[in-house]
Amino acid sequence: MRLTLIAAAALAAHAYAGELPPRPSVADVVKASKADDWRPLDPRNTLYLELPAGRVVIELAPAFAPATIANIRVLAHEQYYDGLAIIRSQDNFVVQWGDPDEEHPRSFKSAKEKIPAEFTMPIKADPHFVKMPERDGYAPQVGHSDGFPSARDPKSGRTWLAHCYGMVGVARGEDPDSGNGAQLYVVTGQAPRQLDRNITVVGRVVSGMPLLSTLPRSAAPAGFYDKPEQRTPIKTLRLAADVPEAERSKFEVMRTESASYAKVVDAVRHRGGPWTKYSPDYVDLCNAPIPVREAK
Amino acid sequence: MRLTLIAAAALAAHAYAGELPPRPSVADVVKASKADDWRPLDPRNTLYLELPAGRVVIELAPAFAPATIANIRVLAHEQYYDGLAIIRSQDNFVVQWGDPDEEHPRSFKSAKEKIPAEFTMPIKADPHFVKMPERDGYAPQVGHSDGFPSARDPKSGRTWLAHCYGMVGVARGEDPDSGNGAQLYVVTGQAPRQLDRNITVVGRVVSGMPLLSTLPRSAAPAGFYDKPEQRTPIKTLRLAADVPEAERSKFEVMRTESASYAKVVDAVRHRGGPWTKYSPDYVDLCNAPIPVREAK
Repeated sequence: MRLTLIAAAALAAHAYAGELPPRPSVADVVKASKADDWRPLDPRNTLYLELPAGRVVIELAPAFAPATIANIRVLAHEQYYDGLAIIRSQDNFVVQWGDPDEEHPRSFKSAKEKIPAEFTMPIKADPHFVKMPERDGYAPQVGHSDGFPSARDPKSGRTWLAHCYGMVGVARGEDPDSGNGAQLYVVTGQAPRQLDRNITVVGRVVSGMPLLSTLPRSAAPAGFYDKPEQRTPIKTLRLAADVPEAERSKFEVMRTESASYAKVVDAVRHRGGPWTKYSPDYVDLCNAPIPVREAK
Repeated sequence: MRLTLIAAAALAAHAYAGELPPRPSVADVVKASKADDWRPLDPRNTLYLELPAGRVVIELAPAFAPATIANIRVLAHEQYYDGLAIIRSQDNFVVQWGDPDEEHPRSFKSAKEKIPAEFTMPIKADPHFVKMPERDGYAPQVGHSDGFPSARDPKSGRTWLAHCYGMVGVARGEDPDSGNGAQLYVVTGQAPRQLDRNITVVGRVVSGMPLLSTLPRSAAPAGFYDKPEQRTPIKTLRLAADVPEAERSKFEVMRTESASYAKVVDAVRHRGGPWTKYSPDYVDLCNAPIPVREAK
């Protein structure tokens, strides 16, 4: 007898008083989607983080961090990250990579040491926003921008990417301009939305999250590994455009402006029976999945 | 140069135009707390899940699931779980344990096969609720109940535990009464609050989350391991009261009714500088930490 959270048809003998009518699941919506509901990743906006256990694929969002992403492209092109390591894994928060050698850190070639903070952008920089009707605690408006969870404040006229699971940000010191892309982090726990508008967010992991989410946690302060052997080495970190085409991963992201994506969000907002007994009729921004699939 | 998300004093040379005044951190509040802000775990309400890599400590919340927890105590006492396995690890969702042998499942001794659903309880069952002022998308009210994140609906007069990171629930089939405690799951990803009011929640992991959160993810449907060697064996799962006192873990949980706990929540709601540039002045229920410490 296998009890799942999702379904266990063998146990459905007893009807529940308040049974909800069935509704399409996310899988149903994805299955019914059309080819033009999807877009391929752009090699100029795709990073491959190659770890000993495999490849993590990151989609960059240049509309939200153009200067920082330009710098990251230079760093990747000049092989700055190769041979560095994952230096931090804090449970229910983030993993982070960078140069573990604090005494003799690797120097930059053409990349800039200082990049102006890109914590928020003018709303006009993002014409792709599709607003969710949900009220959000951290922002006046939330929704999706061309494949990324985002938020905005019409009063200030600013928009920003939201710290959901799998989002990639730029570690910085106290100076807001100190994040140059040399150290990047990925959210591996409950969405730390308090970081929104405090840090430059550059993209999202679209494949390979388990390679990061299963890394050993460090109990040292802020989850930095305190022993060199705890670190995971970075083989390479490359822009897909710098990788021969035959070696590129072929992924497609569901267009968040499509009618199919609206149905995806509806599928997690309004849940049907028989397993679900109570539909939340609400979905948190960070609980709305953004489908990714391998291109045929 | 170590850039952290938290602080990097060496880089503080440049003041930021909108610098926030410093405020106490959670660590500061914990440090300033008094002995009676804490309560020890009750051995009758504490489970030890012993894995090859170490002990996971779970605090049970009998106010929210009295019949189910009574059954789990019987199962643990009669050593039902010993030698079973973690059978599921779905990225950004849950791990789950139970009997991997579907053809010849282990039978119960005195434990009950069917337990009435305890998805919600009458509000009067929980006199310890401290309401947060925050508006929540999934429930009319949220807050904390004697060490657990909880939610309630004054109109229906019902309360329930919330699916935050580390919460422990009872897997079930489609029949709402089919969750008997034989299979338990722990939230290891973004809070799946859509499960609230749909499943019986029995407690929270207070120590050892990394032993669960780092388990290999399965790409098979719903994250069930499809190869036996992927499973992690359960050495034993015992009620602390059934374990000799010398072998018990000594943990204390901050009383969520204490003034110190109100300060903890304030510390994550209103964030001070110098690292933070924008204070959210809001905190999601599942982003409010519930401090645990080893007793002296």
